[in-house]
Formats: sequence, structure tokens, C-alpha cells
Amino acid sequence: MKYIKIFAPATVANVSCGFDSMGFAVDTMGDEMTFTKTSTKGVKITQITGAKGLSLDPTKNAAGVVALAMLTKHNIDFGIEITMHKGFSPGSGLGSSAASSAGAAFGINELLNKPFTNLELTKFSMLGEKAACGTPIADNVAAAVYGGFVLIRSYEPLDIIKLPVPDELQLVAIHPQIEVKTKDAREVLPEKVPLKSAVTQWANVGGLVSGLYTNNYQLISNSLTDVIVEPARKHLIPHFDLVKSEAIKAGALGAGISGSGPTIFALCKGEETSKNVQSAIQNSYADKKIDFTLFSSKINTQGVRILESK
Amino acid sequence: MKYIKIFAPATVANVSCGFDSMGFAVDTMGDEMTFTKTSTKGVKITQITGAKGLSLDPTKNAAGVVALAMLTKHNIDFGIEITMHKGFSPGSGLGSSAASSAGAAFGINELLNKPFTNLELTKFSMLGEKAACGTPIADNVAAAVYGGFVLIRSYEPLDIIKLPVPDELQLVAIHPQIEVKTKDAREVLPEKVPLKSAVTQWANVGGLVSGLYTNNYQLISNSLTDVIVEPARKHLIPHFDLVKSEAIKAGALGAGISGSGPTIFALCKGEETSKNVQSAIQNSYADKKIDFTLFSSKINTQGVRILESK
Repeated sequence: MKYIKIFAPATVANVSCGFDSMGFAVDTMGDEMTFTKTSTKGVKITQITGAKGLSLDPTKNAAGVVALAMLTKHNIDFGIEITMHKGFSPGSGLGSSAASSAGAAFGINELLNKPFTNLELTKFSMLGEKAACGTPIADNVAAAVYGGFVLIRSYEPLDIIKLPVPDELQLVAIHPQIEVKTKDAREVLPEKVPLKSAVTQWANVGGLVSGLYTNNYQLISNSLTDVIVEPARKHLIPHFDLVKSEAIKAGALGAGISGSGPTIFALCKGEETSKNVQSAIQNSYADKKIDFTLFSSKINTQGVRILESK
Repeated sequence: MKYIKIFAPATVANVSCGFDSMGFAVDTMGDEMTFTKTSTKGVKITQITGAKGLSLDPTKNAAGVVALAMLTKHNIDFGIEITMHKGFSPGSGLGSSAASSAGAAFGINELLNKPFTNLELTKFSMLGEKAACGTPIADNVAAAVYGGFVLIRSYEPLDIIKLPVPDELQLVAIHPQIEVKTKDAREVLPEKVPLKSAVTQWANVGGLVSGLYTNNYQLISNSLTDVIVEPARKHLIPHFDLVKSEAIKAGALGAGISGSGPTIFALCKGEETSKNVQSAIQNSYADKKIDFTLFSSKINTQGVRILESK
């Protein structure tokens, strides 16, 4: 294989109760990236379209950082040229740098004839996350690499659990065109939380995991509750409470902040409910004088996928 | 049915990471209770054997409180006579009052021709827990009523999730004959915990639930970690660290404090490991000049069970 084109999915991290430990991949939104073997050694990013402000310098670009780390680890006699078409904006809370990082890890692994496991690809991708956001958080990148729902059971050692995805689960998400910096969203978090709230939260994590294994949509719905992070962060997102309550009124199983925002996600059972929830969210934001994009998607169960290769 | 004799299991609450939200039932240890219809209305406890200090006054006895609440709710024209044989000590951390409460709820429900669901039986049993311990905690009683592993997903409304039990899972437990009062064990808990520790804890709850669904003993083992409650409580239990480390060295998947102690539990895969862990724990306590009882058991998947009825 000399060339590969891949799709790297957007991802929703945290998923209400699962702050810093759960995430899932999106089917209809993501980056397209190409990787081409070159005779000149090294990594070259030749084109980035679809988003502004991303560096072509591989040492300053999430995908570039991942590529350099992989080529250093797997000593090879060729170079790699990368192009990226960003399908969604950095700063959306949908794992933009994670998609670039996981896409690079996956694409280059294919070119190298798959020497690395998904766990290793996640570790490489975390280097990209660290370069982009300052923290090597795994929830977005693991969701992008593995697909479906993932649980980051532990960081040391890194332990990723792939969870099942009930068939009818659908995502609706609204991305208000405002900026929420991950750093700011981290700074509003309390350093300590009441033990009582923590118990509520981990009982809900247990419930969400159980609901995913048993296709129990009611249990998933009941468990999509965040008593710790959402209350601290929601003021950063205009009209969060309204969007959430309208989504739930329209039948959503639950709604919350995607990653560190500003995207708000809702999970729904089935397409009809998904459409109703889309309308409800659209209506709730229509008169708010804030530009937004709204989309729906199945859950991506596959992770990064190959679009073309030769 | 005029008479029923039941077995009400001991239970292990918390299960390391799942403080106040998880529990499981024990197969070989529990109370035997009888319930007999009488023509005189009201609840009478005629005999308690196997433990000292429990009141025969139904308003001051966990089983009695449950019985009175059920008879009040379900207006009937007969009375009930109860006998109890305690198979294990109150104050062991193995849910002694929970067994009495759940046993009463189950037994009387049978005599009444089963008008109540397991969820309702759990709610009645919680009244017994409140009478005995001051707090209507559900983890022991739900495990005793439902059997197997349970998750208390929520208290308001009460939501109990029954989780699967991998076939080869075995319990080994040591009950050092010292007293740890639930109240004291609650008082040493921090009111607030670091968010970082809470994240570690809920990721492990997610991992434990996932491991139970997938028979993944390694994942169960990795997830049996408590970074919040065990560090605060273990000094109340003599030689806790030694017992835990010896159990794990001998092959246990994990070990921790059963409920609020002093019983220390270990979970193992298979009988052979269970035997090795029993020996290791026995050796670790042999020269400690503290009396103890040591036992092993399969996980009880059925909850309270009928021994005899007529």
C-alpha cells in the first residue's frame, strides 16, 4: 500500500455521567485524511482544508506529532505526506484534534502494514491530543480509534474497554458557533466534589454501561445524568438548559455537553425521535442570534475507516 | 400457605469501587427464618437464636419493622409469628440486619401470595435497615432480595439493576471478631473527594459492570480498586493490608472491605484459587491473636430462597 484515504470520526466525550472516562464515535461527521508514501524521509503536511489556523508544521500539528512519533518508533526508509480535510471545526467539543490524531495513527499503521494494536494507536493519538490541548486525554481518541462506545478504565496502565452500542441509538448535536476553550472549561471544574455526588455519578456510570450491554434504553436514559461537571460548565454554553429540556421533551433519552463544549449532544432511540429532537433543538435556538450547526448521526461502531487505498 | 421457612443470604456491599451502590449475595452464609400465620393479628417474634442482643420487640427489630410495615400496607385479617436463626453475627459487615429485613419481606410476601415486586420488597427491607442502622441504605438489602450482583442506580426513585454473575466467581471472606460500628465507619469518610479520584472510581465501576457482563475476570480484577473509601477506612480493620496483599498474591482477583467492615472479602476465579486464597488469608491471621471466622462461597444468584413451606 502506497496511499490511503481514511475517514476519522468526530467523537462525543464524557457522555454526561462519564466525565474523563467515556466517549463514543460519530458516524456522519469527521475528517478525511490521505497518507502517501514518499521517497524523501520524514513527515510533510501538504494541505489542510476545511478549517483555519491549523499549522502545516508537523511538530505543531496533532496529526504531524502522531506521525513523527510513529515513524520514530517504527524505523522506516520512506517518508509520509499527509493531507487533511477537516469536516468539523476545532473548538467544537467534538474531538477535532482527536480525529486528526486517531486518523493519522490509523492511516500510518495501515501504510506500515499494521504493526500496532488499537491500544498502541490510542497511545500515539494521545501524543497528538497533548500537542493540541496540553493534556493527553484518551476519551476522544480512544472512541475514534475503537469506534462505538469506549470506557477508559484506567490511564496507568492505559486500559480501554469497548462497550456495545444498541442498534437504534442515534445522536443529535448542536454546535453553537461560539468558542469554549478546553482550558477554560477545565478551570471551572471543582477540585473536590461531595462524596455523595460522586456516588450518584458512579452509580449512573454503572447504569449506563449496563444499559449499553442490555439494550435497555430506559436505563440509558435514566443514567444520562451528570451531577458534577455539567452544573459547573453549563453556564459557558448559551441556552444549555433550554436545549436540553426541549430535547428531552421531544423524546431524547438524555442530553449533555459534548466534551468541554460548546456542542450539546442528545441521544435518542430511533430515527423518528431523532427527527423530533432535531426540530425541537432547532426551534429552541432559532431566535437566539447565535449561528449554529445542527446534525444527527448513528453511532459509528467501527472507528476510523478506509475510504480508498492503492 | 400457612407457614414458610426461608434462607436469607449474607451480602457484601460496596465491592471495592462501588461504595453505596453495589452489592452481591453470599450462598453459604445467612439467616434461617420462619413465618407462620396466626389467628391473632399483629407481628410476634417468638424466638431468635444464633446471635445475642437482638430485640424480640417487633418495633425494635429489623425483621419486625419490615413485617409491621407490610401488614399495615396490605391490610389482612391474620397475624404473623416469626422465628429467626442468625447464621452470622450482627456487626460483621455482611449485612446482618439486611438479611433479617430482606428475609422478612420475602417470607411475608409469600404468605400474602406475592402481592409485592422485588423493588417493593427492597423498599420494605430498607425500613428494617433504617431501624437497625439509622440509614435506609439499599445495597445489602437489594443484593439479598434480588440475589447476584446488584447496582443501586438511584435512590430517588429507587432503581435497582440486577447484574450478571460470571459462573466461576467465588467469595472468600474473613471476619475478624472485632467490632466496627457502621456509624464510626461512616464518620471517617471524607465529605469531599478529589474529582480526579472520583473519575478513577467511576471508571472502575464501569469496568466492573462491563467485566460482569462479559465474564472478563481480568477486567473484574483490574476494576476491584477503591481509591476513596478503603484508604479512609482500612485502619479500622487490623492487618487489612496484609490480608489483602496475601489474598492477591495467592491469586484473588481483588479484595476489599465488606460493607463497613470488619469483614474483608476477596473475589476469586474458580475453586482451586479460592482454596489457595483461604489458606493465604488464614496464614496471614494465624498469629495475630484476634479470633476470626473464615469462609468461602459461591455467589448466590437467587436471593432469599424457600427452604420449606406448607
